[in-house]
Amino acid sequence: MTTYLEQLETPVPIVDMDRLAFNLDRMAAYATLHGLQLRPHVKTHKSPRIAADQLRLGAVGLTCATLREAEVMAEVCEDLLVAYPPVGAARLERLARLPRAVRVTVAADDANALDALNVAARLGQRQFDVLVEADLGMHRVGVSSPERAVAIAKHIDRASALNFAGMLFYPGHIREAVGEQGAALSQLGANIATYVQAFEAAGLPPRIVSGGSTPAAWRMHEVPGVTEVRPGTYVYNDRTTAMIGACDWDDCALTVLATVVSVAVKGQAVIDAGTKALGREPLRAEGDGYGALLDHPEVVVSRMSEEHGILDLSKTDWRPRLGDQVRVVPNHVCIVVHLFDEIIGVRGHAVETRWPVEARGRGPALDELAEGPSRPRAV
Amino acid sequence: MTTYLEQLETPVPIVDMDRLAFNLDRMAAYATLHGLQLRPHVKTHKSPRIAADQLRLGAVGLTCATLREAEVMAEVCEDLLVAYPPVGAARLERLARLPRAVRVTVAADDANALDALNVAARLGQRQFDVLVEADLGMHRVGVSSPERAVAIAKHIDRASALNFAGMLFYPGHIREAVGEQGAALSQLGANIATYVQAFEAAGLPPRIVSGGSTPAAWRMHEVPGVTEVRPGTYVYNDRTTAMIGACDWDDCALTVLATVVSVAVKGQAVIDAGTKALGREPLRAEGDGYGALLDHPEVVVSRMSEEHGILDLSKTDWRPRLGDQVRVVPNHVCIVVHLFDEIIGVRGHAVETRWPVEARGRGPALDELAEGPSRPRAV
Repeated sequence: MTTYLEQLETPVPIVDMDRLAFNLDRMAAYATLHGLQLRPHVKTHKSPRIAADQLRLGAVGLTCATLREAEVMAEVCEDLLVAYPPVGAARLERLARLPRAVRVTVAADDANALDALNVAARLGQRQFDVLVEADLGMHRVGVSSPERAVAIAKHIDRASALNFAGMLFYPGHIREAVGEQGAALSQLGANIATYVQAFEAAGLPPRIVSGGSTPAAWRMHEVPGVTEVRPGTYVYNDRTTAMIGACDWDDCALTVLATVVSVAVKGQAVIDAGTKALGREPLRAEGDGYGALLDHPEVVVSRMSEEHGILDLSKTDWRPRLGDQVRVVPNHVCIVVHLFDEIIGVRGHAVETRWPVEARGRGPALDELAEGPSRPRAV
Repeated sequence: MTTYLEQLETPVPIVDMDRLAFNLDRMAAYATLHGLQLRPHVKTHKSPRIAADQLRLGAVGLTCATLREAEVMAEVCEDLLVAYPPVGAARLERLARLPRAVRVTVAADDANALDALNVAARLGQRQFDVLVEADLGMHRVGVSSPERAVAIAKHIDRASALNFAGMLFYPGHIREAVGEQGAALSQLGANIATYVQAFEAAGLPPRIVSGGSTPAAWRMHEVPGVTEVRPGTYVYNDRTTAMIGACDWDDCALTVLATVVSVAVKGQAVIDAGTKALGREPLRAEGDGYGALLDHPEVVVSRMSEEHGILDLSKTDWRPRLGDQVRVVPNHVCIVVHLFDEIIGVRGHAVETRWPVEARGRGPALDELAEGPSRPRAV
């Protein structure tokens, strides 16, 4: 018996399976065409099922941020990049305990952190590949000069259980529309060249130069030196991705199915998707609101409470009735996935499948640690 | 063996158990002192353990927004208010299936919704008490005139399985600091009086007038006519609650324990609590940032990515080192709880207990419904 969208309790994230397959295929084809290694970031989907599809389509490995993500993805992938500073005893312990059959690469920007990482590797009787994280404009993490990068690379090279593998950057500061990224990408290429030259002059040529996220992914082949890209959002896309021109509106594979629960206040309708379903992410492009309707992009979620979203009806003739279902394209899909335990896969109006957001959450914060030695010190 | 904060993997929400007990007790005492019935909103904690404490301290029942919350709380409470529009077939089915031993009250603002609710009640062989939801300034849901409220009350009174119980409002529009709420509260009292008079003139005197949320809770006794308050945030409090004067800074019982993971970029430090741990909630008071440090309130989380929070160090002499743990008071604690599966209870620096965020998530979106009749129609 077929289940239809109308039978689902809302709010619930639903994924158009055709569109998901198209999105996966397109990025794989882009990377192949341009000789870039594709290492998708799993933060967007947090699902080993989708990760397996990405690997089947040619991805060389996966990128993770949390140890929970790495542990779950180790079940389907033997080549993981943990693109997050390896800092904190608990995080290091979990890194060291990842299956030894998995090649684990770590990004780092600090010599002290690397000393601790080396100890963790030795305790785990394993080696870590390490990428030096460089700040090429995002100003979040990463060393800010080629000299500092080389010092860290040498530090890695001297550590008994660490192997220098290259450099990593996150071009999250590139927020122009895709057609207007030219200047930023030229600057990026020039910056990368100074780092690569410094590494080479020190006798440590980088095997990997890892960069790229969905907004800039489609033009990363224009940046000389980049060997690997790490897009995440492209699997589902979202309103921001569409508005900057990195996908079409119809490429938004994930929407939040919601129900109109009140039309009592004039000029608006209230849906049951609020901040606990959509997050409160700004649109990183022209426009306002926290999401827009797939079938009525002019209708935005203009205000929210935890379980209420207010649809602004001032720019539309469409008038929803109480009980109508709508599909909201969220501003930032990675946050939406993190808010739910399960995703529903649909084809047209029919429910086809479902899968858990398996790498959601943080994993054990306490259980296993409680068995280890006590390490009291002042916070 | 004692476990200490330093052994926890971060980010993780931790609750000061002494402070939690104090917060619970103070609101219970306030309500008792002023003869107000206390029906705490569980959206903040989503935990039957804390709900049971609230009931033990004198709460007359609990307030829920989602059916998942209602189902979980039905295990510890026989008097639930679902303060959310009863719209959508799946939501109505779950309402009807709540244990029949539980008195269920529902808030509604629409006659068509009430007809469906009446059908659900009859199918469930039960009665629902109903509060007419009035819009007294929030402009989210609720009828906007006493005439409309009376029409709905009569509709309820005529429905075979519904009982008119009174009115409900949510004063979320009152965002002044506690000391400056006088005018808004006077206006609220005047509005309530017009509604109550209209109900009485129609021969339907309200048994319950339910209002109040944490920011305005401490002055709700000044509003004539209010019989019941529904604060939620007071159990944990947060930066917004403290900044508007509804609690002291030290009353913030829940903080997000985080680790400094990068100090590579000058003038800032990066912690591992970003939007996936803190949400991206604005401070609803003077000030900026998405949270502030418990021990250094002048240090705010000024920017965030999904797993990174940037601490602005421009207003402090404090200089964190890589690996240091910090405790972040979030702007809006209800969102933080919804982002995690488990809460850690601490006393001083020692971990004392832990509990799941049991009413988090949405519950079955599909499983049970798949057994019901198919109801295809166009979305």
